[in-house]
Amino acid sequence: MEDCEFRRISTERSENARFTVVKDLVSVGGHLQPFYYTEIREGVCILTFYKEKIALLKEYRYPVSSWQWEIPGGIVDPGETPEHAAVRELREETGFLCDEITPLGGVYTSFGSSNEKINLFLARCTKRGGASPEPAEVFDLYLFSEDEFKEMVRNGAFMHGAGLAAWARYVSRG
Amino acid sequence: MEDCEFRRISTERSENARFTVVKDLVSVGGHLQPFYYTEIREGVCILTFYKEKIALLKEYRYPVSSWQWEIPGGIVDPGETPEHAAVRELREETGFLCDEITPLGGVYTSFGSSNEKINLFLARCTKRGGASPEPAEVFDLYLFSEDEFKEMVRNGAFMHGAGLAAWARYVSRG
Repeated sequence: MEDCEFRRISTERSENARFTVVKDLVSVGGHLQPFYYTEIREGVCILTFYKEKIALLKEYRYPVSSWQWEIPGGIVDPGETPEHAAVRELREETGFLCDEITPLGGVYTSFGSSNEKINLFLARCTKRGGASPEPAEVFDLYLFSEDEFKEMVRNGAFMHGAGLAAWARYVSRG
Repeated sequence: MEDCEFRRISTERSENARFTVVKDLVSVGGHLQPFYYTEIREGVCILTFYKEKIALLKEYRYPVSSWQWEIPGGIVDPGETPEHAAVRELREETGFLCDEITPLGGVYTSFGSSNEKINLFLARCTKRGGASPEPAEVFDLYLFSEDEFKEMVRNGAFMHGAGLAAWARYVSRG
């Protein structure tokens, strides 16, 4: 089916502070079909080891009305490489300074309704400076052993999409 | 920080065929802050074994302008349990009939900008009937060995957020 042609006929865009809502009218193999999705800036998420412990944030996530465990992350700034963004976000959010940063590939968080792509990284840190989170960010930082984190993945307490994706890539490396 | 109060002051909602865009003005510990996010219906994704092989779809995903590997999935219909939705979607999309369906917990695909929750399942199938995909769905079905799939996770060819989350939960069970 890979020869099926998708051709955009028209587009409507509506921007807000977080994303752009796009409505495209598309000709799919000759039939007209609307596609609605959000355009979101490319992000990074970092599976972070600090001296053999995994660093997790607990942050209130308003869209799901609950406190959620997650790995550190943020947005890639214009002109910045994903790797630089990962090192910068990790330092800003947690104060951790990377000894080593390794790409774990990309993930599309929900490609049916958003173009959001998160670049995943593995960070190994042994030093910590001062954090400088943005004023709007409300979270606490915790450290867990690999076994404790594994159990949070297994029992469903850890529900962060990009964090689970990073873990899947990490364990696939054996 | 878990005593920090989030109180909604006002809300604006704008619906389309795929999701609702919400703009809430929220008082966070006394400071006003806007939150933009999409409300999306709850979904299911199913890590599917058909006679020891893993079933993947290859589908054109318009928001990311590319053909993507993914595990089967869909929307939970009103009044339906996630488990029923998983069995139904799997049958409709692929024709596979479940011998066994096991919940793998939930994942929030992108809780900073959407309330989307996907209920993950592991399905074991040995029988196959006829599929009845919706007309708008354009995909092909492929079967891979567990080792082949593991390699697609490792090398980054498999980028499906909910699929990687399901795999993380599956491997965490040992």
